[in-house]
Amino acid sequence: MISIKWAKLIKSLHLKKYRKAEQLFFVEGEKAVLEVLASGWTVPALFATDAFIQQHSLAVKAAAMLQPCSSDELVKNGTYSSNDAALAVVAMPQWPLFSAKAHSWTLVLDNINDPGNLGTIIRIADWYGIEHILCSPDTADCYNPKVIAAAKGSFLRVQLHYLPLADALAHASLPVYGAYLGGENVHQLKLEAAGGYIVLGNEANGISNDIGQLVSRQITIPAFGGAESLNVGIAAAVICDNLLRLSH
Amino acid sequence: MISIKWAKLIKSLHLKKYRKAEQLFFVEGEKAVLEVLASGWTVPALFATDAFIQQHSLAVKAAAMLQPCSSDELVKNGTYSSNDAALAVVAMPQWPLFSAKAHSWTLVLDNINDPGNLGTIIRIADWYGIEHILCSPDTADCYNPKVIAAAKGSFLRVQLHYLPLADALAHASLPVYGAYLGGENVHQLKLEAAGGYIVLGNEANGISNDIGQLVSRQITIPAFGGAESLNVGIAAAVICDNLLRLSH
Repeated sequence: MISIKWAKLIKSLHLKKYRKAEQLFFVEGEKAVLEVLASGWTVPALFATDAFIQQHSLAVKAAAMLQPCSSDELVKNGTYSSNDAALAVVAMPQWPLFSAKAHSWTLVLDNINDPGNLGTIIRIADWYGIEHILCSPDTADCYNPKVIAAAKGSFLRVQLHYLPLADALAHASLPVYGAYLGGENVHQLKLEAAGGYIVLGNEANGISNDIGQLVSRQITIPAFGGAESLNVGIAAAVICDNLLRLSH
Repeated sequence: MISIKWAKLIKSLHLKKYRKAEQLFFVEGEKAVLEVLASGWTVPALFATDAFIQQHSLAVKAAAMLQPCSSDELVKNGTYSSNDAALAVVAMPQWPLFSAKAHSWTLVLDNINDPGNLGTIIRIADWYGIEHILCSPDTADCYNPKVIAAAKGSFLRVQLHYLPLADALAHASLPVYGAYLGGENVHQLKLEAAGGYIVLGNEANGISNDIGQLVSRQITIPAFGGAESLNVGIAAAVICDNLLRLSH
């Protein structure tokens, strides 16, 4: 059974202000929880069904505390609508301060609002070996349970830095690419060198004006049909794919 | 006010069996409804707020019948959780039978289950000028409100054909590309000619064995990092982008 004290804590971690105060978040679902347990990250508490605990008796030892509970209790306290097997309360990592490495790519998110989009972008960054994402302070919180669910374990490998983007980009020594409609065609792009910043803008309004002024090259995914736009997660994937292709 | 008769019909159209029986579906939201009204498709009924009707007094004439109603009534009968302005009941189109055109690309969906993924793929097809999608009979229904919402008007331009895929592909005169892990790298692919089929498999299980036997080239998005997989919508976009780049 999940004790009252822990149930209260988990419930509070649905909200950003309590996650921030406690420096904790939670991870749900068999696969993601197993990835966290294997990662070396600090797991103050694990709640899991008897079946999960029996099947993963070694893995669960990575948690500081283990409380067996029912799937219904997990559903009641987490975000799953049914069939959950495990929920881990996890300590937020302390990433080292960001500094750009030569020849490496960094994603820059200017007010990405939707948690699903942010999670998808984290997974894409991980696929393409992009280790750092800079996020404007108004971008969705990366420890939101919906972000964690969409990121599929990739949140363990990609470092997110929330900071004023203008300050970070003003002193950029690498090119700053920005995703726009009407920029250079990414299929025909020639890069001076590998590496740089890839700026993606808000779902409705695109890149803000002050960040746009720091973009050195506007780039565009060529359209061949009638759709007016692509979802920002889709655009992120196609742009990363092209830039990584051109730099390998 | 939405009359009881129409409210009952709209409610029934949430379910595939009634959509199929009536050959009707519904479209919600200001932007999508305006696109439908401008498309020339048959709109037997339109339900909209006074503000919407006043602002789009010419566009609304495309509907055979118009019932002014409140936003709350739209929310009650549709799928929006708040702030809806219009809902159109639309007649399903009768697409001509599919036949492959030389040099053109066709997407083939082998049991794509998630309506959001299907809608995203329809939007991607439209962006890349792909006019036809072949769907296995167990793929999500393209008139599901979640598909329509995710497709963002692109359902008006892309023709979906539900049919046994094995029959369609067995007599293919164009190459059949299949998305796999461990196939040819799409960055290094050489095409014999433009055009062909692009097969995408189920979210959990990939391409089924009997369809896999009809794939002539297995292709893969190269990974540079730690993520094990990409969402099928993301994979569809990156593969379309590469194949369109190579054939233009």
